[in-house]
Amino acid sequence: MTFALAPRILADTAAIASLGLSELRLMDDARFPWLMLVPRKAGAEEIIDLDAAERAALTEEIALVSGALRAVTGCDKLNVGALGNIVRQLHIHVVARFERDAAWPGPVWGAGQAIAYEAAERDRFVQKLRQTLPA
Amino acid sequence: MTFALAPRILADTAAIASLGLSELRLMDDARFPWLMLVPRKAGAEEIIDLDAAERAALTEEIALVSGALRAVTGCDKLNVGALGNIVRQLHIHVVARFERDAAWPGPVWGAGQAIAYEAAERDRFVQKLRQTLPA
Repeated sequence: MTFALAPRILADTAAIASLGLSELRLMDDARFPWLMLVPRKAGAEEIIDLDAAERAALTEEIALVSGALRAVTGCDKLNVGALGNIVRQLHIHVVARFERDAAWPGPVWGAGQAIAYEAAERDRFVQKLRQTLPA
Repeated sequence: MTFALAPRILADTAAIASLGLSELRLMDDARFPWLMLVPRKAGAEEIIDLDAAERAALTEEIALVSGALRAVTGCDKLNVGALGNIVRQLHIHVVARFERDAAWPGPVWGAGQAIAYEAAERDRFVQKLRQTLPA
């Protein structure tokens, strides 16, 4: 089985970078600075479908991406989650939260309807993230 | 600064086990089999407040607890999340989800009101988890 991004993830996100284990994507929802890591392991649905080395790599990618996201946004809190109740392909959300955001203090998952970015705004944010991630 | 469980966590959860890094607790909500890992690091609020060795340990504790929880419950999906928008002390939720549960397919966070366990039912569940966790 070859890895490919789930169609729903492909439709809802934009590419930021290919990390060692995971594809890093931006969720197309201008309400929240919202990243997604998708480990390139075909068939994985749970964190425990990864082996120990892959879990370690994933954890370090979560840390890397969390640091960059906080640096770029100056957020009040990070939210990290692996749910997958709807899209089963393993994916980890890393979301920058603000005490004034549309879902605070609730979770972003299931909170109202996404508002798509304007293309130029999205591209600027992706560019900033790329510049902030360690090479 | 000495580590102590946040008062809200202490009030809402019951002790299951002390793991290498984290306190493992059971959320007192009979609607969802819902565990919580609280790393014993004073002042930590984000996963990136842990150092790399602590993050690795946390990841392995998430994997350990996820496997035990799925074995005990036979759940359809695991949900893992670090939010902390309300209680800032770093804590990681590991929740067993069923396609027929009260919040499916939404997240458990912010979903309605908790329903406390009956003491005997809670104790049985804690006992089963303790027996299933590797020694």
